[in-house]
Amino acid sequence: MQLAIMGYGVVGSGVAEVLIKNHDSIVRRSGKDSMQLKYILDLKDFPDDPLHDRMIKDFNIILNDDEISIVVETMGGLHPAYEFVKSLLERGKSVVTSNKELVASKGAELLRTAREHRVNFLFEASVGGGIPIIRPISQCLAANVIEEVAGILNGTTNFILTKMIDDKLDFDTALRLAQKNGYAESDPTADIEGIDSCRKICILASLCFGYHVYPDQVYTQGISDVTLQDVAFAHKFGKVIKLLGMAKKLSDGRVTASVRPCLVDESGQFANVTDVFNSILVRGDVIGDVCFYGRGAGKLPTASAVVADVIDCAKHSDRTKIFGWNDAKENYVTDHLDDPCALYVRAQGDEKAILDLFPAAEIASSGGEFAFITDAASERELLAKLSRIPGVTVKSTIKVTDY
Amino acid sequence: MQLAIMGYGVVGSGVAEVLIKNHDSIVRRSGKDSMQLKYILDLKDFPDDPLHDRMIKDFNIILNDDEISIVVETMGGLHPAYEFVKSLLERGKSVVTSNKELVASKGAELLRTAREHRVNFLFEASVGGGIPIIRPISQCLAANVIEEVAGILNGTTNFILTKMIDDKLDFDTALRLAQKNGYAESDPTADIEGIDSCRKICILASLCFGYHVYPDQVYTQGISDVTLQDVAFAHKFGKVIKLLGMAKKLSDGRVTASVRPCLVDESGQFANVTDVFNSILVRGDVIGDVCFYGRGAGKLPTASAVVADVIDCAKHSDRTKIFGWNDAKENYVTDHLDDPCALYVRAQGDEKAILDLFPAAEIASSGGEFAFITDAASERELLAKLSRIPGVTVKSTIKVTDY
Repeated sequence: MQLAIMGYGVVGSGVAEVLIKNHDSIVRRSGKDSMQLKYILDLKDFPDDPLHDRMIKDFNIILNDDEISIVVETMGGLHPAYEFVKSLLERGKSVVTSNKELVASKGAELLRTAREHRVNFLFEASVGGGIPIIRPISQCLAANVIEEVAGILNGTTNFILTKMIDDKLDFDTALRLAQKNGYAESDPTADIEGIDSCRKICILASLCFGYHVYPDQVYTQGISDVTLQDVAFAHKFGKVIKLLGMAKKLSDGRVTASVRPCLVDESGQFANVTDVFNSILVRGDVIGDVCFYGRGAGKLPTASAVVADVIDCAKHSDRTKIFGWNDAKENYVTDHLDDPCALYVRAQGDEKAILDLFPAAEIASSGGEFAFITDAASERELLAKLSRIPGVTVKSTIKVTDY
Repeated sequence: MQLAIMGYGVVGSGVAEVLIKNHDSIVRRSGKDSMQLKYILDLKDFPDDPLHDRMIKDFNIILNDDEISIVVETMGGLHPAYEFVKSLLERGKSVVTSNKELVASKGAELLRTAREHRVNFLFEASVGGGIPIIRPISQCLAANVIEEVAGILNGTTNFILTKMIDDKLDFDTALRLAQKNGYAESDPTADIEGIDSCRKICILASLCFGYHVYPDQVYTQGISDVTLQDVAFAHKFGKVIKLLGMAKKLSDGRVTASVRPCLVDESGQFANVTDVFNSILVRGDVIGDVCFYGRGAGKLPTASAVVADVIDCAKHSDRTKIFGWNDAKENYVTDHLDDPCALYVRAQGDEKAILDLFPAAEIASSGGEFAFITDAASERELLAKLSRIPGVTVKSTIKVTDY
């Protein structure tokens, strides 16, 4: 069995490393006689790399080589990854990807293409790095109707929030530290503004609820507005601030999805997920809550997930795995503002005016500001109510979850 | 596709309930036209049960019915479950079980029988209730050489320890509360003495490391000797006491396995696993640490795992899933006392004598006793050292883990 890797960056080179390091056990588990890495496609040169004899620059060599039955796509980005993957599937080759942008934008379509050509399109590495999550959802929880899925899906932002919470670094300082440690890129927008988490919750929601949810349907808010004052107030309420991606099935069959900073309980499963770790919670009608935890990014953890998919492709070389991820439905994703929740509110002004509208609120004050947590109601109503409190200026609101 | 359930107790009736409740989505996911529950085998009568028309008492009806292709075994106990399962597999029927005693004692043999007859023997529900763990280990982490597996594997003991830690109930009171809540049986021995956890760590170790580990090879100690004094001392050291099942691959290829109370870090992943919840940590060479968390027992969570296996059997009706779980090797399991670790020690007598042997020890005193944590060394050496401290009586030792 021969394979190719497209994209020899961090993840791609990790995949090559794992394939070589654990070659024997991988071959044994795949039930094949051998597994050879024949080509590595990358536009860059790697003259000193021990695998440089396999490097190619022309995609068509892979496409036209009938010996290649599995291709690993670790290029990232939507183009040309999409065109490459699509034509490989049409040519009867299975594809394994770690590319969350590709899966979040084109998952339903590429799964359909794979099905039509009796090959596999697998993407375990696209969410949660090495944490097993795609397969557990699609197989182990198959007896459940899944009601909710939520998670700390981005290691960079979780590292920054951890430093703000544990070491009282402000956002900018924590971000610079993340960049210094190699956890954040020089342009950190995709991470800190929640775009990366948004792609991942799209993949999870599509898989859990059965119809494609697209990134532009998901309310997405990052962590750049979270202040140390918010962190301190949250602690007074026994809470911790985490950036969560969340999706929920409503009783009418529609779904709501969002990415935003949230308050979680200090004793809950998410609170102790620190540094670059990720955690994903799935709530099923039969099982209740199940959580998955581990390193959500990084060369080798992500490579671990890619290689597990490669083994699965090798084992299932004559059949297509069923994911139950269908094309989008109209009016399927609904506005997150209608979802009932409690809000944490940080404000300035007349504390007492709060008690007229929220008589049960416990108010904490510090540094000329105060904070409280509202009762649960639709977020739209709560925001309307908050906008008309005389003498009070709301500085920020953060969703309070039951996680 | 027709199936039978053997054993209509808590789990078996839960399986029937889930099969009926989520019938349509289960059929869709299994890729079959239908899935009918044809027989329920139980020696008891259930005259008022809505499914009483399917009740039978003669096992041979199932064995000899060629329409039955999948049988769910939720009888528990080794006999006659073992004989029944063995003959069903030999007759070409796939078997799904939640019976940890059966899998821990006969797993390798029954997997071999299944392979020889080209059917499946699946047991996701035997560890961690509904938490997906067997399939993630055997599939998602397939790119890894697994180095360690450890977990809070028993909900009853975790509930008792939680009550001791959070509510300062002593062991006997906490046990009675567990019994009152239906979490502990009237004879709680299998839970509190670690026998249940032992069976589960055998299954996990066999699966992770490739060769059968039997319950009698595993050092097993329960929680009945843990005192509130231990809980309080542990807290002073920033630790929490949990009953862990642990197995580890040594550099010489052998493994060590044990079940015992352990000290875990208050900020670690195990510390926040409270009440009847379970959590399992897998440490792989590529992925690092991955954790799985959820309800480790209970009717519906366990049924969820059984039904996921039923769906998998239906999808794989023409091939045997490979687990890489082989018959036991000689001298494969080695003594846990040679494994290096630090020990928590509770003692009475001359505190100062401790500092001669453990100069770096931080000593906490309370109620005429004192406690400290040793340096890391082989447990055998540490116990020898502790036995010869003049003027000191050691009351208890508890392993300190890095989890």
